[in-house]
Amino acid sequence: MDILNKIKSPIDVKKLSNKELYLLSNEIREFLVSSVSKTGGHLASNLGIVELTLSLFSEFDLNKDKIIWDVGHQSYVHKILTGRKDKFSVLRTHNGMSGFPKRNESQYDFFDTGHSSTSISAALGMARARDLKKEDSKIIAVIGDGALTGGMALEALNDVGFNKTNMIIILNDNQMSISNNVGGISSYLNRMRMKPKYNMLKNEVKSKLSGSEMGENIALKITKVKDSIKQLVVPSMLFEEMGIKYLGPIDGHDIVKLKEVISNAKMMTGPVIIHTITKKGKGYELAEKSPCKYHGVSPFNKTNGETIMKKSCESYSKRFGNSLIKIAKEDKDVVAITAAMPDGTGLNDFAKEFKERFFDVGIAEQHATTMAAGMACSGLKPVFAVYSTFLQRGFDQVLHDVCIQNLPVVFSIDRAGIVGEDGETHQGIFDLSYLSMIPNMTIMAPKCLDEVYPMLKWALNKGTPVAIRYPRGGDILDNLKGISNIELGKWETLIESDSNVCIISTGKMVSHSIIAADKLRKLGIEIELINATFIKPLDDDMLKELSSRKDIIITVEDNIIAGGLGSNIQMKLLEFGYKGKVESLGYKDKFIEQGKVDILYKEEGLDPDGIKNKVIELLK
Amino acid sequence: MDILNKIKSPIDVKKLSNKELYLLSNEIREFLVSSVSKTGGHLASNLGIVELTLSLFSEFDLNKDKIIWDVGHQSYVHKILTGRKDKFSVLRTHNGMSGFPKRNESQYDFFDTGHSSTSISAALGMARARDLKKEDSKIIAVIGDGALTGGMALEALNDVGFNKTNMIIILNDNQMSISNNVGGISSYLNRMRMKPKYNMLKNEVKSKLSGSEMGENIALKITKVKDSIKQLVVPSMLFEEMGIKYLGPIDGHDIVKLKEVISNAKMMTGPVIIHTITKKGKGYELAEKSPCKYHGVSPFNKTNGETIMKKSCESYSKRFGNSLIKIAKEDKDVVAITAAMPDGTGLNDFAKEFKERFFDVGIAEQHATTMAAGMACSGLKPVFAVYSTFLQRGFDQVLHDVCIQNLPVVFSIDRAGIVGEDGETHQGIFDLSYLSMIPNMTIMAPKCLDEVYPMLKWALNKGTPVAIRYPRGGDILDNLKGISNIELGKWETLIESDSNVCIISTGKMVSHSIIAADKLRKLGIEIELINATFIKPLDDDMLKELSSRKDIIITVEDNIIAGGLGSNIQMKLLEFGYKGKVESLGYKDKFIEQGKVDILYKEEGLDPDGIKNKVIELLK
Repeated sequence: MDILNKIKSPIDVKKLSNKELYLLSNEIREFLVSSVSKTGGHLASNLGIVELTLSLFSEFDLNKDKIIWDVGHQSYVHKILTGRKDKFSVLRTHNGMSGFPKRNESQYDFFDTGHSSTSISAALGMARARDLKKEDSKIIAVIGDGALTGGMALEALNDVGFNKTNMIIILNDNQMSISNNVGGISSYLNRMRMKPKYNMLKNEVKSKLSGSEMGENIALKITKVKDSIKQLVVPSMLFEEMGIKYLGPIDGHDIVKLKEVISNAKMMTGPVIIHTITKKGKGYELAEKSPCKYHGVSPFNKTNGETIMKKSCESYSKRFGNSLIKIAKEDKDVVAITAAMPDGTGLNDFAKEFKERFFDVGIAEQHATTMAAGMACSGLKPVFAVYSTFLQRGFDQVLHDVCIQNLPVVFSIDRAGIVGEDGETHQGIFDLSYLSMIPNMTIMAPKCLDEVYPMLKWALNKGTPVAIRYPRGGDILDNLKGISNIELGKWETLIESDSNVCIISTGKMVSHSIIAADKLRKLGIEIELINATFIKPLDDDMLKELSSRKDIIITVEDNIIAGGLGSNIQMKLLEFGYKGKVESLGYKDKFIEQGKVDILYKEEGLDPDGIKNKVIELLK
Repeated sequence: MDILNKIKSPIDVKKLSNKELYLLSNEIREFLVSSVSKTGGHLASNLGIVELTLSLFSEFDLNKDKIIWDVGHQSYVHKILTGRKDKFSVLRTHNGMSGFPKRNESQYDFFDTGHSSTSISAALGMARARDLKKEDSKIIAVIGDGALTGGMALEALNDVGFNKTNMIIILNDNQMSISNNVGGISSYLNRMRMKPKYNMLKNEVKSKLSGSEMGENIALKITKVKDSIKQLVVPSMLFEEMGIKYLGPIDGHDIVKLKEVISNAKMMTGPVIIHTITKKGKGYELAEKSPCKYHGVSPFNKTNGETIMKKSCESYSKRFGNSLIKIAKEDKDVVAITAAMPDGTGLNDFAKEFKERFFDVGIAEQHATTMAAGMACSGLKPVFAVYSTFLQRGFDQVLHDVCIQNLPVVFSIDRAGIVGEDGETHQGIFDLSYLSMIPNMTIMAPKCLDEVYPMLKWALNKGTPVAIRYPRGGDILDNLKGISNIELGKWETLIESDSNVCIISTGKMVSHSIIAADKLRKLGIEIELINATFIKPLDDDMLKELSSRKDIIITVEDNIIAGGLGSNIQMKLLEFGYKGKVESLGYKDKFIEQGKVDILYKEEGLDPDGIKNKVIELLK
């Protein structure tokens, strides 16, 4: 680590020779594997971007130039080189260092990125600000090929190409985002990758002939060429048609070539895209072989790759996937949709078993939602499995294309509530609010794994839009019994009691509330406990009854309070003339930072002790 | 109207000769101008699509084939031909016929479309359903060139091209959506329009040479061609690179050619795009000359084009635009952004005066929002002027890219609340809810035009995200005085009273409440009236004080109740131990259909009488 230890700021990288840069790249890889194997984190994508990051740092001056890292989980090397190497021991921990770029963490983090496909828009905004302020800086967006399929990246390319703003887009093409990429753009990039020599040739010849006029004769000859050949020799067309100059493809691990191309791009006016081919997991054999597995990892043994933590319990994702397979066997109209997350959402086995009924649309939540609506119009029963935070991208489509038409689309919302180490941008704490406001929507949450299958089955027979939201991971308590009979808007009484205190919980918070009830019982305090199986509609009958019978009502949800379960229950209680105390536990108008979920629950008063203490406080 | 009067269903169109189709197209145009001049509605886009619609009806069988009309305001001809000609007298009226396709209106309306860029996704969903069900139908999406810049359309193209699903996309290219189009795709289409003969030639030669192999020699020759020539001869590349076969461009008013090309497309396997060039306003001279003016019209004199209704009062859009100009003159960091709505949002004059500080990004709300965030990062003060309903498209970007980073972006939210005749898909009744739940967001609403300027100025100096929401049209009362001093989260007492009844209103509902208060006063009932200048944060001090002093509190907002102003006030009142009655007026978990705003307000109990009656009811 001789060179790495000397790098204190981006300036230090600029002083290095190419040879030193190569040595440094080895040191960085060693550091990454060693560090991430201890802490967990995003590994493969960062191993793939070492030389590219070094070349960018070498060619640009980050005291005036700005690099925007799309998605952000490819920013570890950037973090190492900007004075944060020593913070890797607290990577993704509470109050530690984020796994994503954060403006409040470093002057060199120019934009917070968590969701995909935002970098070109942000960079264009900065480039336009630079132009208006007549400053002289370079703006660079680094975007993966997977992120390029997200609609907003294409909206941004359209704008960039039209207005010819000076900026550089680095396409970090590793042929996969998290899983393998899909889509026309992806297969287009694939064709380009296959034929680098034609393209290099084209660029050379073009630059030599630049300025000469050849006219219609040649044009006529060209028309005689077949499609396939045309695509061989003019692979840059997709971008150039949109008005963006194209350079590449080049080897993203070849520092000399990278620097040369970047150096050329710096001199060009208007937008330029540099297409680099990188290998996800590069330099660490295990990750090269299994880039998906090493995309985001728990701590592992760096010699054999074995995960150090003990195997976790069955996850909701897994149970969802298996439940859907079971249902799909009986109902041939059931189809599954994912937006580039077949692994994460538990659909991998479904995809194998029902190849024709499985649709991975790429990072494209808007399209996924409206396509599901189209399918539902034609008699299919589509299930869109999606993380809570990513469904935010399809909000308008859920509202318009699914709910106005009241179409039977089922949203299986994974990673609902706090997800932990990924922090603010990945917490799924808004879905209960942004879905509750939408007419025609039904929202449910299983309190335990056993309720996943019956809820999914019920939802698929409902005939109108239904969202089922469940957390990351599995159950905390293993002795919970699923309800036997699901009825629209009917809640379940888990602990019946004459006590004047009632807790209404939903989803994972039911387990926390059961534990809290046990703790309270030991203190001699009895409570009634209700499981809000449905978040929408509410159980009006039960609320009416509770409003006359209880003096203290506490709602508990793993969601922002405004507009969520508690908010809607409070309105209903007022409507029923409830005169007692009511308090809603959940997140209070703030973003929740990274950290282990248990620490975050504790901090937000949503752990069993927090619930217990709230009861005691209100009883005073 | 000899032919038109005989058309009772799509089948009748199929029986017509080309000559009859041309005669029919004239009759339809005559009918459209005559009818829409009386009722108002979308005119220019429908005049432009007469021959295209006839050709589609002639070539397809709508009893099994499905046409999806993107945006939907181009569906009048379709409606005329599917048995709804007689309903044009009640176009866009309450309980009348919608101006958009509605599945519940006709078996031939296959998907409800209101927002742009959804048709390819919906059509792909239907095409996949057809394939799974092994049915034999054609699925056609008709999309304008403007809608093609919306991210989700590109997400869908990416999916279509990759998976080669059989479907036909008709690109209805009139070189503008509502205003002139912008963007790389638009200028690309423009180049294609300029060179149809090269393209025709290419297609002819290509089909003749099909099968022959020419290899590397020709490939090498091609590399010698300059960019500009390359673009002349292979204009179809953008789509074909994505895996979609391209036919065109063809004259979208030439029925013979249209039918021929459509007939060819029907025979092809995989996705096909047919590029048609149409003229917005075609056949009605006034509309051809001013297609923007005749995009959406009020009733007008069809001879001279003069609007029949008396000139309306100054609009919020206009006042906003003028206010922004005034502020921008003093503050050079202020910039304005629109997503293809410079007219509608009142930015036209700003665009003229500050050409370099005005950014029209096309139909691309996601990109617009994140670009604004990028600008704010670099010290600019961006104002994104956008309709309430369209900002739903940028929900995730508002939450993530603006609010997590707490960046000073101002959202000027026009058409907030009920907008009227455009119906469910255009009512702006969700913004208070979807913005209130987002941490770091401040939300304000002017009660009258005079407050637009000071609020905007205040918002631009706030240094964090601010949304200002205001309604379509102008003020109802003309004697309102704007507040002199804006302070974060402070409300304004408009009528002070010892009465135990208090109304808290926001925005346009303040005027309704003032009128209601007058009516109540005449009945001997006094009320206190508060203007909630801020929807977020609430005025806690005032609410605390009211909670101890009042027995009846009524909140009034032009928004869905769940998660909006009333919902958040109710929670706060409970927190303060309020024991009185509280009722929130707003929209109750349902979509609001089309109709004149006054009728809709009345129906929803939000007109002055509705508010008055609620007070009387609660006093009983």
